[in-house]
Amino acid sequence: MAVTLADIEQAAARLEGLAVRTPVVESAKLNERVGGRVLIKAECLQRTGSFKFRGAWNAISQLDAAAAKGGVVTYSSGNHAQGVAAAAQLKGLPAAIVMPADTPAIKIASTKAYGAEVVTYDRATESREAIAMTLAERRGAAIIPPFEHEHVIAGQGTIGLEFAAQAKQLGATLDDVLVPCSGGGLAAGIALAFAARSPATRVHTVEPAGFDDMARSLVSGKRERNAAATGSICDALLSPGPGELTFAINRGLLGEGYAVSDGEAAAAMRYAFEVLKLVIEPGGAVALAAVLAERLPVAGRTIGIIASGGNVDAGLYAKIIEGRF
Amino acid sequence: MAVTLADIEQAAARLEGLAVRTPVVESAKLNERVGGRVLIKAECLQRTGSFKFRGAWNAISQLDAAAAKGGVVTYSSGNHAQGVAAAAQLKGLPAAIVMPADTPAIKIASTKAYGAEVVTYDRATESREAIAMTLAERRGAAIIPPFEHEHVIAGQGTIGLEFAAQAKQLGATLDDVLVPCSGGGLAAGIALAFAARSPATRVHTVEPAGFDDMARSLVSGKRERNAAATGSICDALLSPGPGELTFAINRGLLGEGYAVSDGEAAAAMRYAFEVLKLVIEPGGAVALAAVLAERLPVAGRTIGIIASGGNVDAGLYAKIIEGRF
Repeated sequence: MAVTLADIEQAAARLEGLAVRTPVVESAKLNERVGGRVLIKAECLQRTGSFKFRGAWNAISQLDAAAAKGGVVTYSSGNHAQGVAAAAQLKGLPAAIVMPADTPAIKIASTKAYGAEVVTYDRATESREAIAMTLAERRGAAIIPPFEHEHVIAGQGTIGLEFAAQAKQLGATLDDVLVPCSGGGLAAGIALAFAARSPATRVHTVEPAGFDDMARSLVSGKRERNAAATGSICDALLSPGPGELTFAINRGLLGEGYAVSDGEAAAAMRYAFEVLKLVIEPGGAVALAAVLAERLPVAGRTIGIIASGGNVDAGLYAKIIEGRF
Repeated sequence: MAVTLADIEQAAARLEGLAVRTPVVESAKLNERVGGRVLIKAECLQRTGSFKFRGAWNAISQLDAAAAKGGVVTYSSGNHAQGVAAAAQLKGLPAAIVMPADTPAIKIASTKAYGAEVVTYDRATESREAIAMTLAERRGAAIIPPFEHEHVIAGQGTIGLEFAAQAKQLGATLDDVLVPCSGGGLAAGIALAFAARSPATRVHTVEPAGFDDMARSLVSGKRERNAAATGSICDALLSPGPGELTFAINRGLLGEGYAVSDGEAAAAMRYAFEVLKLVIEPGGAVALAAVLAERLPVAGRTIGIIASGGNVDAGLYAKIIEGRF
């Protein structure tokens, strides 16, 4: 395996005191509703508002000075952008981020607030990887990809180490863990950590309906791609297909993948507002949505879910909580 | 003192496994903004969406069968209502709650969802205590007042025990703790706990401007009352004056009291949405508001704040996060 438990443990040591050890939240009301026990790893409370700071810092803190003399470059739908921008700022490196032009304004504004330069592109017609590569070459900067990178995967895996330990402290063994999935780096890291620390736990991806490339790839055994590049409110989960590295890890470790509709994601956001009091963005709410929509058996079981981010524009959030979506 | 550390410790034992040991949330962005360290005790993540379950369960779990043969009755602007309704349901007792007619709909709906009967009254012209007393006498029910009760104060004090221990675990000693204040039960409980466990910490109330009866009472040395009964978005903090019992505790233990405007409370809610990813209601956000508005010195200090609840109607929340308030 290209990423080991030791890599994840070392990432945890690098993140100590910089990343938030996010709390595990439990709601009596939610447990009662589903007839099981649901533990929520609230990564929306992470530095930068999503889990992405973990992988970004683990990668950027290990860069050698020569490779990063021109700073760092990445491409991202918004959360990895903020993670990289914040990590680069901490490390004292300039950052340039290639972001889709239709990214939620809050994500662009926050990325700039960490001192990064933002370069926008058209999600439907341009290649973000090509733009980033050109930028990086011109500047002598290192590329920090959003998921297809061992240090990034190891960083995201620290969530799994924490979650397994926190569940144990709560007297629980997680039967299943549901992970929002785009390129598959978060799922890969978490699956590696659980395989080592809680092997009875089955890790599953949750994707937006129509963008369930990972679920289909797990079934077919080869990397499938999505038909569309846009068309879901889950802006964080629209990667065109699994990474080569992430899929190599995930195919060996993951259980069945699930998909939820935009309406189900919005209902989960509304539930999180009304009952949990957590701000969760559309893509961050898909795992909760899968539980609320009973995409898998929950009654009598203990289910872990990752609430992976909370970076959502006020306008969309207002619509969703008022039931206008 | 009518409430002792032992009472609070016993309350903590009664709440074990029923109340949430709410997380302490810290934000690098917030720390940077104020130039100090801010630790947020997120009681909005508590069972029923506010801290009130603690005091309600501590009181109701100790009721003897004869006193409560007709169940329990209380009066509340909404959060204590839900706390009592949920605690009564757990204990298998019927509950009747006297609530202002202008209470946010989410609070009335949630109270009913816990199986309680809701009786509304006019906040400006009727006496909720009188209505509750008549109801309780007719039914043979026990009254669980929102703050003027030793068991209620001891229950709220468990927040102080947890917060002092959690701060210590984070390597911090809190210089000041800011507590949203209405009748003063939360502040009294927390002040008692800190006096015992972290005596260097100074506990302060924060109230809505125009409803700063506790702050004025601390200055004058006698219980002052508010001129108005309505007129702030902080619906949870409109009690007409300090309780006799709560003031007797608070006058000996509290530092200066602060007040914030509705605009400052709304700005704090917006900040919690954008940066912290916590849903906080107006009254629950006043302590954060006092920090953001620098009502006290924060630079170079470690400040604890209580985010006391998150029960806010979607319509008002939408207005506030979109800057339409």
